[in-house]
Amino acid sequence: MNELIRKIRTFRQERDWDQYHSPKNLAMALVVEASELAEHFQWLTEEQSGNLSPDKLAAVQEEIGDVLIYLANLCDKLGIDPIAAAHSKLEKNKGKYPVSRVRGKAYKYSEYK
Amino acid sequence: MNELIRKIRTFRQERDWDQYHSPKNLAMALVVEASELAEHFQWLTEEQSGNLSPDKLAAVQEEIGDVLIYLANLCDKLGIDPIAAAHSKLEKNKGKYPVSRVRGKAYKYSEYK
Amino acid sequence: MNELIRKIRTFRQERDWDQYHSPKNLAMALVVEASELAEHFQWLTEEQSGNLSPDKLAAVQEEIGDVLIYLANLCDKLGIDPIAAAHSKLEKNKGKYPVSRVRGKAYKYSEYK
Amino acid sequence: MNELIRKIRTFRQERDWDQYHSPKNLAMALVVEASELAEHFQWLTEEQSGNLSPDKLAAVQEEIGDVLIYLANLCDKLGIDPIAAAHSKLEKNKGKYPVSRVRGKAYKYSEYK
Repeated sequence: MNELIRKIRTFRQERDWDQYHSPKNLAMALVVEASELAEHFQWLTEEQSGNLSPDKLAAVQEEIGDVLIYLANLCDKLGIDPIAAAHSKLEKNKGKYPVSRVRGKAYKYSEYK
Repeated sequence: MNELIRKIRTFRQERDWDQYHSPKNLAMALVVEASELAEHFQWLTEEQSGNLSPDKLAAVQEEIGDVLIYLANLCDKLGIDPIAAAHSKLEKNKGKYPVSRVRGKAYKYSEYK
Repeated sequence: MNELIRKIRTFRQERDWDQYHSPKNLAMALVVEASELAEHFQWLTEEQSGNLSPDKLAAVQEEIGDVLIYLANLCDKLGIDPIAAAHSKLEKNKGKYPVSRVRGKAYKYSEYK
Repeated sequence: MNELIRKIRTFRQERDWDQYHSPKNLAMALVVEASELAEHFQWLTEEQSGNLSPDKLAAVQEEIGDVLIYLANLCDKLGIDPIAAAHSKLEKNKGKYPVSRVRGKAYKYSEYK
């Protein structure tokens, strides 16, 4: 991830794009890219979404690249380590959704979200 | 990233949540989390978005954690390496937006996007 | 719709919120509200999404209100009539997806989108 | 709005697309269209977003048409009147953001959102 962030920073600086890359704009671009990713799945059934054709999978992979590029860009601007942020949130989620209460119970998952 | 993906997989399996985590649902959840991240910035000016208070920054960091967790989850389900996908997209972008054509020219950035 | 737009305009002006309501910010807020709407459906099956409980339906209705308020706000700022825009787009879609080619054919819907 | 909803229903039924149009899928499509709308604004300054060229405005109008079409489709499926939902939410917002507390005060708008 660190190498990726360094490369993205160079890419941005070589093009003098820092002026457009406010955290606000990057957050907006991240949503737009995430939506482009979701667009590939929107008319598929859940089952179909787990059995993509090689072409579709390649297109999805590209969108995932875009999402991570904007996320890394945003993190670089804000001085946030994305991997550490995810580890820390995952620990928090362990407390929020304890296995003993969540697993195999009648509670609907959606109520925990 | 690999360690993160392993931990997320364990978290998901311990709770028996694989049944909800179709790629379609994960892609949708990713957009929702990305929007929650963007919500922190939506009424700020671009300048303000670069000068967040410590409290706001902590809240933003948590949302970034959520975004990366869902992205990692989706990649794990699809068998995609997110870091490799981003490197590969970045290389493609270098060809699409060559420094010599983009930097310091009158072309508006928005036309390249 | 016209009465709604007038009321929204008054609401905005009484609060002196025009300064925050640039089209850019309103478009971003619209995505955020649309995502909050989608969040109600993200872990449901498609079938469940057509059989909401009265409580859930009331919550969804409120989010739909938010989406339309921001859309109306944006249209008011840009001088666009949303109903006319939808009629015009629907006419365009009739040409793009002719019944004879689309209905009951092997073409997958997703390829048309 | 009622006439629009009737036309959209006919459009959908003539193409036998009801099978794809679960509320879940329509909500997802609505987010995707709202993001396509936001994409037009993402690299503009707030000021630029209020001064669109005629071409850009025409493109934005088309995206607004798409957003309203999906919103109307979703409302038709759920039996919700979108205009009534917006009026009702606006009344609720009047209580939530009273003019006397919000207008011209030091409170930042973002804290109310």
